[in-house]
Amino acid sequence: MSAPLRGIVAYPITPFTDSGRVDERLLTRIVDDMLAAGVHALAPLGSTGVLPYLTDDEREAVAETVVKRAAGRVPTLVGVSSLTTERTVHHARHAEQVGASAVMVIPLSYWKLTDDEIVGHFEAVARAISIPIAVYNNPATGGLDLGPETLARLLQIDNVTMVKESTGDVHRMHRLVQLCGEQVAFYNGSNPLALAALVAGARGWCTAAPHVIPRLNVELWEAVARGDLEAARRSFYRQLPFLQFIVAHGLPRTIAAALELMGTRVGPLRAPLRPLEPGRVEVLRQILLELQVLPER
Amino acid sequence: MSAPLRGIVAYPITPFTDSGRVDERLLTRIVDDMLAAGVHALAPLGSTGVLPYLTDDEREAVAETVVKRAAGRVPTLVGVSSLTTERTVHHARHAEQVGASAVMVIPLSYWKLTDDEIVGHFEAVARAISIPIAVYNNPATGGLDLGPETLARLLQIDNVTMVKESTGDVHRMHRLVQLCGEQVAFYNGSNPLALAALVAGARGWCTAAPHVIPRLNVELWEAVARGDLEAARRSFYRQLPFLQFIVAHGLPRTIAAALELMGTRVGPLRAPLRPLEPGRVEVLRQILLELQVLPER
Amino acid sequence: MSAPLRGIVAYPITPFTDSGRVDERLLTRIVDDMLAAGVHALAPLGSTGVLPYLTDDEREAVAETVVKRAAGRVPTLVGVSSLTTERTVHHARHAEQVGASAVMVIPLSYWKLTDDEIVGHFEAVARAISIPIAVYNNPATGGLDLGPETLARLLQIDNVTMVKESTGDVHRMHRLVQLCGEQVAFYNGSNPLALAALVAGARGWCTAAPHVIPRLNVELWEAVARGDLEAARRSFYRQLPFLQFIVAHGLPRTIAAALELMGTRVGPLRAPLRPLEPGRVEVLRQILLELQVLPER
Amino acid sequence: MSAPLRGIVAYPITPFTDSGRVDERLLTRIVDDMLAAGVHALAPLGSTGVLPYLTDDEREAVAETVVKRAAGRVPTLVGVSSLTTERTVHHARHAEQVGASAVMVIPLSYWKLTDDEIVGHFEAVARAISIPIAVYNNPATGGLDLGPETLARLLQIDNVTMVKESTGDVHRMHRLVQLCGEQVAFYNGSNPLALAALVAGARGWCTAAPHVIPRLNVELWEAVARGDLEAARRSFYRQLPFLQFIVAHGLPRTIAAALELMGTRVGPLRAPLRPLEPGRVEVLRQILLELQVLPER
Repeated sequence: MSAPLRGIVAYPITPFTDSGRVDERLLTRIVDDMLAAGVHALAPLGSTGVLPYLTDDEREAVAETVVKRAAGRVPTLVGVSSLTTERTVHHARHAEQVGASAVMVIPLSYWKLTDDEIVGHFEAVARAISIPIAVYNNPATGGLDLGPETLARLLQIDNVTMVKESTGDVHRMHRLVQLCGEQVAFYNGSNPLALAALVAGARGWCTAAPHVIPRLNVELWEAVARGDLEAARRSFYRQLPFLQFIVAHGLPRTIAAALELMGTRVGPLRAPLRPLEPGRVEVLRQILLELQVLPER
Repeated sequence: MSAPLRGIVAYPITPFTDSGRVDERLLTRIVDDMLAAGVHALAPLGSTGVLPYLTDDEREAVAETVVKRAAGRVPTLVGVSSLTTERTVHHARHAEQVGASAVMVIPLSYWKLTDDEIVGHFEAVARAISIPIAVYNNPATGGLDLGPETLARLLQIDNVTMVKESTGDVHRMHRLVQLCGEQVAFYNGSNPLALAALVAGARGWCTAAPHVIPRLNVELWEAVARGDLEAARRSFYRQLPFLQFIVAHGLPRTIAAALELMGTRVGPLRAPLRPLEPGRVEVLRQILLELQVLPER
Repeated sequence: MSAPLRGIVAYPITPFTDSGRVDERLLTRIVDDMLAAGVHALAPLGSTGVLPYLTDDEREAVAETVVKRAAGRVPTLVGVSSLTTERTVHHARHAEQVGASAVMVIPLSYWKLTDDEIVGHFEAVARAISIPIAVYNNPATGGLDLGPETLARLLQIDNVTMVKESTGDVHRMHRLVQLCGEQVAFYNGSNPLALAALVAGARGWCTAAPHVIPRLNVELWEAVARGDLEAARRSFYRQLPFLQFIVAHGLPRTIAAALELMGTRVGPLRAPLRPLEPGRVEVLRQILLELQVLPER
Repeated sequence: MSAPLRGIVAYPITPFTDSGRVDERLLTRIVDDMLAAGVHALAPLGSTGVLPYLTDDEREAVAETVVKRAAGRVPTLVGVSSLTTERTVHHARHAEQVGASAVMVIPLSYWKLTDDEIVGHFEAVARAISIPIAVYNNPATGGLDLGPETLARLLQIDNVTMVKESTGDVHRMHRLVQLCGEQVAFYNGSNPLALAALVAGARGWCTAAPHVIPRLNVELWEAVARGDLEAARRSFYRQLPFLQFIVAHGLPRTIAAALELMGTRVGPLRAPLRPLEPGRVEVLRQILLELQVLPER
């Protein structure tokens, strides 16, 4: 089965209304804005989309909203992860039903899982659906670290065809290529590693940055794609302070703060998450001023 | 508000029937066995009790079953943690209603929390109930690491009166005593650290080991309490291989396997968790043989 | 071959004159003071004695000075480590010749050594001398980390009879006892772990603290030896701030600063090492005031 | 002062005769071979050259041999590091006298150094010589980790003009560019990071690989220099298994083994270092067969 994604894979936040409900109207607008700016795929219910903090009903509503609005213009990669296998399968089926192009699964942990447990988890999802599955490795959020050998093992499951690697360690990508061959479909999930990852052969860059700098993100992708190293390096260092900032202080907090600074009200975060601290908002404002994405006052 | 716990705080598993439902009858028997063996408190819905893998209804049923069966014979410490503040408050209220002596909260993470977010989370729980709260630090499961300074800050919240420290680092306990004074009520949550922790001043030892070796656990506690260092050391080294094993391979898997070896059928684990691998069951059998807790064949 | 050490093993600094030469007169006085205060052994040319910063001639002079002055009143453990095997053997022979009771070897690294290389290094030393050898594990200074399994392997070499463990991890001591039996002669080299290590079965505590608080060090040792846990805990927490401070900021810098505060001029450190920063000297002064070891002004 | 290096900076081993003396004849041949293959600079007395294991006399002989043989055909970067400032200054002066283009200093540690101590160490060297100085960061060998902020601070010292970064972490290079500007002269010292580092803007690649695959090393450098990403990636993945192997098992051991496999006898390593283990030699042989650098049998 193929790997349907390539390029800038944009991760929308899950915005809330003031009363704490999912704000589907704003989510729709974010989708439209990202598509207008040229991103190549949409990935609702990722870490940025605060997947684990949502109820089952909210998750289904978000998946449906984004997939429907994308309407086939770009592929959609829907996050379906849950702590239990049973719930993961449930959400994977739902994503397929609403028309997702693929699903993404990060194996969550409370108890650390053995490799056999992780494989069993993905096999159960793979049996339940017939669209492609992306394995997501992000020990900083999921609590489990899947090394290249484990990822290679998971890629042997029938419709597990993609890997999103978010450790920020380019050596792991090298190793994955060595284990699986140059055709392996891996994606970069660590924003500040974007340049090194694309040069190492990543097929795409999974990022929440297109809420703020979609054209810079696309520009970097295109420079690498056409082999213009000079332009790629220039574009990368230009956006790097923003990429470092959103990773350092948490994507939901920082993207919400950036959208607010840019004039879009996104509502409260879900507790225990709180808004970005005022001192950090000021640092972010300076970064956005440099990037010339703030409205005139 | 006081710290109602002291001594061996036993953590029951959540057993399931073959059809995957909580086995309340077996849970009741486990409670009875632990009390008969002399443990000093009961803590349902801990990590051993696979709290995060249960539905809300299952959690409430387990809390009620254990608290009712304990019937005041020993204090009960009920785990009420959830990823969101809203669900944590909900379960804390329920625990108080069914008669728990205290609740335990581990701040779970997907996104790492700031100290202010952690404090806000505990303050919300503290406002909602009037029984004591234990802070549980276990970065290996919860994904957040609360250092001694953060723990000391949380202990200033009104009915946050206890700390369970599970990093296995005795220096953190020293630091906690230095920050909060000798009267600070901290408990050891890392089985192989039991001796060092009690000598450092821990008020108790939170452990799943009483499913298998309750009398050895109580013996170690009592030896330290009466200042018999020689007996304490002997008891500790005797039980250490078992303590190391259950920590190395996961409490739910290893306790289930030990109970099966001892003749109690505990049903399947909840996926993605799987039973202890056969090779490891054999190692466990040898350890239990040494401890003379296996039935005659 | 036996393990000749037990109790408080005191590590003298190597003091320098203002012109940067080893101050043998002051070194002699430090030895006398430590013996007068009741320490149980002396260990010149340890980390505290800045062994690796000395020339071969200086090393030999220090060894001879301390061993001669001790004059058999207590055992002496002389540090003989070098990066190359050839130089280590040279210094081990010299230590034996001047009458050392035993030698201590930390396997230094620039290139990480394999286990076989480490074993070969110790075997070469063991062949060259007939006094006992202590293995010293301290990855923070030596750059190599010898796990319990490697230490156990080294203890099978003929006159390698002792281990000094300085990682500050009590679990390693437990593991060493499990691998080698209760009679294994291990010593604590991490000051803030003193209480836990002695309770775990350490035969002694290797420490530079007797420059400042020898009686408190001996008091802790004696309290554990007679099984008085209450007194041991009280003594430990009393001296803990000092122990933490000297480890956090480096033994040569902090012991020199403490001696200066107490009225003994110890001369410059050897560059690139510099004196403790003034702000930290103030913190140290407060700690020493609490311990009542500063002279009246 | 300028940064005189660019491209492939080759690090010769220090070969020994069977009697354990420096083999200057073979060293000369290695220099000739590397220059014939097109490397852009030579760096004797690096980690590969087992600098810390040599006597002062041996160090001076190696420096003189390589600098004289290079004879200005390419720049030379001579390692002059020692644990003490006094010895480092001594060797720096000697390197300048024999005609080195620049010196390299890794701040070695036994005691961890404060930033002020590190700065003082480099200032002392800078005062003593007038050729450029490269700061070398490699915590795995030197035991100290200089972060980008510390490196930026050292680059403000008058003739400290270059940084060799060997942590293998590309993010540190990004940060260095952000702190010091695009003109900062940094070099990659971690072989498996070569591609990512050059793309990030490194001016050169410090490597021992030219003993075996000098043309592949130069080919990668040239592909990046002319912006041919496709060719660069192909060249990189081709040599990667060799680069990973020599880093994993130690440069002196693996380069010696490779030279032996290729037909050059290099003599024993200096104890405690030992030859590469036979099983690993076999793995290396396979890697070299793939690279077609082994002679016909």
